[in-house]
Amino acid sequence: MEQKLNVLTLGVRDLDASRRFFVDGLGWKPHLDVPGEVIFLQVGHALLLSLWDREAMAAEAGEFYRGSDAMPITLAHNVDSEDEVTAVLDRATAAGGSIIGAAQSRDWGGVSGYFADPDGFRWEVVYNPDLAFGPDGTITFAPPPA
Amino acid sequence: MEQKLNVLTLGVRDLDASRRFFVDGLGWKPHLDVPGEVIFLQVGHALLLSLWDREAMAAEAGEFYRGSDAMPITLAHNVDSEDEVTAVLDRATAAGGSIIGAAQSRDWGGVSGYFADPDGFRWEVVYNPDLAFGPDGTITFAPPPA
Repeated sequence: MEQKLNVLTLGVRDLDASRRFFVDGLGWKPHLDVPGEVIFLQVGHALLLSLWDREAMAAEAGEFYRGSDAMPITLAHNVDSEDEVTAVLDRATAAGGSIIGAAQSRDWGGVSGYFADPDGFRWEVVYNPDLAFGPDGTITFAPPPA
Repeated sequence: MEQKLNVLTLGVRDLDASRRFFVDGLGWKPHLDVPGEVIFLQVGHALLLSLWDREAMAAEAGEFYRGSDAMPITLAHNVDSEDEVTAVLDRATAAGGSIIGAAQSRDWGGVSGYFADPDGFRWEVVYNPDLAFGPDGTITFAPPPA
């Protein structure tokens, strides 16, 4: 498992409030803004901050985001194929991590699974064919299907 | 406030368990490892993952990390001077953020303060004269004082 983080996702209760703070207030420019769902902001070389509606996050990523002690964050590690998702989850298991969501196809067109590190922080291993991290640090989302 | 994240800190309960998982298990190489205190791992271009003993984190970063609903994470934004710490905290306040820890000198030789975004995620604005993020993405810690 390569030593890298590509996306930090924060589950937010009110995406409009997040937009007012980060975009209107701080002047940050969204890379992608899907009202009511998610805002992606590039916060470094090949690094995204994702502000995801917390209910949508829980619906996709599982009930573990709803508990009273849940930490609504995900550290995402992007890979280049479906097979690599499985391979990295296996590697994380062998290292002592806990699989908390097996690899599966997602509505947005990719495949991902989740493991927890020793403190329960959740890592998502993701293959997203529509999202590319260039060697120069640029990030490209494919246009949504027509 | 520049649109960037430099350090993601996770408060960990057992730093040795974290080392077994990330270093021994996944094979990741620490950038800096201070047993009993903190492990820094470079996880991208100019990006650090910091695994910080949760008690030490609470002692420095405040009681807000001890509550039952506390999320023991910090998103750090590094700047180049003490004045900039204050300026960025002011900007975050003007944007609607809440200051949860005024800028102050820290034991490790720098200055930092904390604000909360609309969901209570904590951002640290940091001036650390011993930590440099190079334009090519390399990260340099100054050697500790003799």
